[in-house]
Amino acid sequence: MEHAKKLFLEKVAYNLRVSSLISTSKAGSGHPTSCLSAADIMSALFFYAMRYDPQDHKNPNNDRFILSKGHAAPVLYAVYKELGVLTEEDLLGLRNFDSVLEGHPTPRFAYVEAATGSLGQGLSIAVGMSYAAKMDKRDYTTYVLLGDMETTEGSVWEAAEVAAFYKLDNLIGIIDVNRLGQSAPTMHEHNLAGYVQKFQAFGWHTITVNGHNIEDLCTSFDEAKNVFEKPVIIIAETIKGYGINFAANKEGFHGKAFKGEEEDRALEQLYQNFSSIADAYSDYSWLSNVPVKDTLHVIPPILLPEPTYVKGHMLATRKAYGQVLSILGSKEESVVSLDAEVKNSTYAELFEKKHKAQFVQCFIAEQNMVSMGVGMSGLGKIPFISTFACFFTRAYDQVRMAAISKAPLRLVGSHAGVSIGQDGPSQMGLEDIALMRALPNSIVLYPADAVSTYKLVALMANYNAGISYLRTTRMDTPVMYDNDEPFTIGGCNIVRQSRHGDSYACVVAAGVTLFESLKAYEVLKREGVTISVIDLYSIKPLAQDILIRMAKKSGQKVITVEDHYLEGGLGEAVTYALRNTETEIRCLAVKKMPRSGTPQRLMEYEEIDANAIIKAVHGF
Amino acid sequence: MEHAKKLFLEKVAYNLRVSSLISTSKAGSGHPTSCLSAADIMSALFFYAMRYDPQDHKNPNNDRFILSKGHAAPVLYAVYKELGVLTEEDLLGLRNFDSVLEGHPTPRFAYVEAATGSLGQGLSIAVGMSYAAKMDKRDYTTYVLLGDMETTEGSVWEAAEVAAFYKLDNLIGIIDVNRLGQSAPTMHEHNLAGYVQKFQAFGWHTITVNGHNIEDLCTSFDEAKNVFEKPVIIIAETIKGYGINFAANKEGFHGKAFKGEEEDRALEQLYQNFSSIADAYSDYSWLSNVPVKDTLHVIPPILLPEPTYVKGHMLATRKAYGQVLSILGSKEESVVSLDAEVKNSTYAELFEKKHKAQFVQCFIAEQNMVSMGVGMSGLGKIPFISTFACFFTRAYDQVRMAAISKAPLRLVGSHAGVSIGQDGPSQMGLEDIALMRALPNSIVLYPADAVSTYKLVALMANYNAGISYLRTTRMDTPVMYDNDEPFTIGGCNIVRQSRHGDSYACVVAAGVTLFESLKAYEVLKREGVTISVIDLYSIKPLAQDILIRMAKKSGQKVITVEDHYLEGGLGEAVTYALRNTETEIRCLAVKKMPRSGTPQRLMEYEEIDANAIIKAVHGF
Repeated sequence: MEHAKKLFLEKVAYNLRVSSLISTSKAGSGHPTSCLSAADIMSALFFYAMRYDPQDHKNPNNDRFILSKGHAAPVLYAVYKELGVLTEEDLLGLRNFDSVLEGHPTPRFAYVEAATGSLGQGLSIAVGMSYAAKMDKRDYTTYVLLGDMETTEGSVWEAAEVAAFYKLDNLIGIIDVNRLGQSAPTMHEHNLAGYVQKFQAFGWHTITVNGHNIEDLCTSFDEAKNVFEKPVIIIAETIKGYGINFAANKEGFHGKAFKGEEEDRALEQLYQNFSSIADAYSDYSWLSNVPVKDTLHVIPPILLPEPTYVKGHMLATRKAYGQVLSILGSKEESVVSLDAEVKNSTYAELFEKKHKAQFVQCFIAEQNMVSMGVGMSGLGKIPFISTFACFFTRAYDQVRMAAISKAPLRLVGSHAGVSIGQDGPSQMGLEDIALMRALPNSIVLYPADAVSTYKLVALMANYNAGISYLRTTRMDTPVMYDNDEPFTIGGCNIVRQSRHGDSYACVVAAGVTLFESLKAYEVLKREGVTISVIDLYSIKPLAQDILIRMAKKSGQKVITVEDHYLEGGLGEAVTYALRNTETEIRCLAVKKMPRSGTPQRLMEYEEIDANAIIKAVHGF
Repeated sequence: MEHAKKLFLEKVAYNLRVSSLISTSKAGSGHPTSCLSAADIMSALFFYAMRYDPQDHKNPNNDRFILSKGHAAPVLYAVYKELGVLTEEDLLGLRNFDSVLEGHPTPRFAYVEAATGSLGQGLSIAVGMSYAAKMDKRDYTTYVLLGDMETTEGSVWEAAEVAAFYKLDNLIGIIDVNRLGQSAPTMHEHNLAGYVQKFQAFGWHTITVNGHNIEDLCTSFDEAKNVFEKPVIIIAETIKGYGINFAANKEGFHGKAFKGEEEDRALEQLYQNFSSIADAYSDYSWLSNVPVKDTLHVIPPILLPEPTYVKGHMLATRKAYGQVLSILGSKEESVVSLDAEVKNSTYAELFEKKHKAQFVQCFIAEQNMVSMGVGMSGLGKIPFISTFACFFTRAYDQVRMAAISKAPLRLVGSHAGVSIGQDGPSQMGLEDIALMRALPNSIVLYPADAVSTYKLVALMANYNAGISYLRTTRMDTPVMYDNDEPFTIGGCNIVRQSRHGDSYACVVAAGVTLFESLKAYEVLKREGVTISVIDLYSIKPLAQDILIRMAKKSGQKVITVEDHYLEGGLGEAVTYALRNTETEIRCLAVKKMPRSGTPQRLMEYEEIDANAIIKAVHGF
């Protein structure tokens, strides 16, 4: 490498160090030592290896970068200062309320592709991006910088095996092996062979390098780009706090900003250790390696024809989901389906049969699957991610981070509730409504029949403001709606009421319990008691006005009934919506630890069946 | 091996096959083909390798067994029939509501050590048991049977690296490599080398074996028991559906019970394929290899002296947690602390300093940490598991399964809410109350000061009916309670009210928002408006009677305020408790996507600070 170029890259690295120090000191918090170990890698990456246009970060042909070790955010922001995207003043706003430069990266800063900061998720996001590149035959490379300590997260190994299985040779990871975690040394410390063995066993090409030698780093990136059929991991030996004598390679300096006299000392030591670089002149004029211009295809709203279900026909909503997903896939090739090896249970297999190239088998690794969806959604895909409702609990941290990323993931959880029956509690989704409601900008939908499933899935396809969640049922249920029945996000359907609209009580249900409510309606009607029944297919947002009106027309007596735990579920949501209406509310929900048994026996046991509803109505 | 012994083991395996078939056919559902691949392994394991007393399953010196591939439950139950613990009639009750033999194992059947059925968790539970053995210097071996497809779950690799790091040579895993998952072949199919490489890279001793050769299986177990300083994995090549010609090694037979004529055919083929065994006579009289008799030490309630905090002194509740945990550790050596490499943030480090042998560094691998706690709790440990509140989302599937196991885990989440400030949303626990409330038998506690933390942690130590969760705060808060103030599970404290008890409105808060409420109280008092303020330190269970009484005394006007998302949080819990009292309720909670900023600025932004409370009071 020519001297001027090398010097330029070293100067950039030096600048990244100084900026990381100054910005965290100004903020009074942050992780400067974790930035110092990564500075050379970041310089070689952004100013040597990557092909991208800093003036057009939305170009889908740009190489992508994910900072998996999100706590090193200041060094990323410092890169963008060197690129002329941010000013020094911007950097000094780090961690301030009015700044987009958050403590850990979020897409509020537009150059951040996905929020990180919960460790071990970056590689999965990058796998999603690499997979999307293969799907779209784009030749960008996805780079991801990992911390060494975060490789203990299982999600890293989920990502590693999926990437190798799909031969993602457009994916290059770098591990910043700085030996020290937050409170303890890592398992492998500076034994790079430990990482080499693991990644090789998982099918990766490995490269080891001194992470503070710019020239060697560049050579490593060159090698990495010439590997075929395998993803590559560059294992870079580094020093945490490199350049600051009193902190370098020492415990006790994680997540500590240098303050006052300590900051001065740190800057001085940096200057002394890099004086030959800091003061030298390089006449190298860097130009970014810009890819072919392009923009992501803007997907217009996807419109589906009306469904053609036959009223009374028995069909599980999970199967209707597979059917409509398949139709969506025909309408729009950006629709992709991600499966965690349960496609014959969720009926994602109906999509796979028709759209093999748009279907991604993620194996039993839900965490990686969800984060792959984040990566793919950023590149114009419309991911529908399905597994058993209960197994989204496995990936809830990833779902939470996806919400912070504002990634429009479509999550579909099948086998909701005790009504799955004999498989027992481990397979029952009983917390999913609570989990999915507690996400900013999320919507939670729960259809009872095939028509509503069809229409709600179509709405999800066009919902781009955050996470949308659909809950499906294992057992067959009868088609109850006309094919032209309208459904809206935030809507509900009044499926039973008296002719004049008044009733003795109002039952609010969704999914399987809607049919129990209809049974209860018939029995009570024979007794001369008229109840109204609401299908609350949209649990978040929720049709508060209609609920208030219906409560009023029902003598302020409302019963909610759901196949879900009480806490955070439909009942609490309705109770909250009706909180200031002086309504008497009975919430029927799963309140006892469930077990194996027939669906009907379990619904009886949990008191969410027709008899329990009748009893509750009588109880008013 | 002598012929009679071999024949005996083969006969047992044959019987396990027949029982698995018959019981799933009778139930009409289940996973017979997954049992057939494992039958020889189970025979060699229970009737050759293991040392345990079937008459005394509570003997802590027994070898332990975890069925990680929980869907093969019928073969486990069949083992207990062979052992004389269950009858054939019991087996025929499989999956019935009134039977303890559930579709996937749960401890309702007392011989099951932990619930399984959410894949990839068994190895972690086993690691906890092995670790406990080392702690207690017991020489039992822990065995765990994994499916091959479940090794794609990252939690398996979390467990693998922790087990190797701690040199758990008392841990023996077996992978039933039957090539086929639920809907697809596994990544490695029958390429055993794929598993060998991965486990060796993760520091394990590996053994490969034909999983249908009893003699070789026994030899493998002998070898495994003679490995030192390393955990051992036996990688057994098997055939899914082994013994039934029309199903063996074929896709489409996962999770399908054989019915009617198909059952007859399956049984007939089994008989034909094993006729030399089924009809042969073995005079081998098996005796179980029984360990030294012992019983687990029953831990009496742990009583702590009153704390000695000074009112007004500033101390973060997370630090008070570390202090009381350390005292608990001195009182009772069964108390163990599990950390995910954040001990200096959660203050578990205070415990570690005093009780090194009772402290377990689990590295950044929350899933494995939680399941290790399940394994340890079953062997008489009292695990306190701490990390950032937000990172329990990473292990929520494990927490959910722990609840099904009825494992008394103590979970402690620090850095709750937006009030952590500058680190930003990825580090904020904002869904934890919702998550932890939605577990059967759970309790959710949220102290505001050091005294309440001290007392609530002491209560958790003695709570054995399920999961207990404590939420702690990052920032310092003043000690506000007298050291002799009593606290109870399900209690609350009325910290402000007028002398005669009546007030204009009642504010219900917990943690940091309690102090905002107290600020609001002072301002409003100066205006001549008296509010009552409740410290709802026990969010589940919740002091409904007191809340109802206080609402009444406050003109039926209640404000809740919490540093947590609205959904599933304190506000919805209180709203539910007051649902039939005609109370006007305003719920202040985190309703906008948070970001980095100062704690006070963020609480202002989310409208959960004193000003927001004052505004809400004025709004009535």
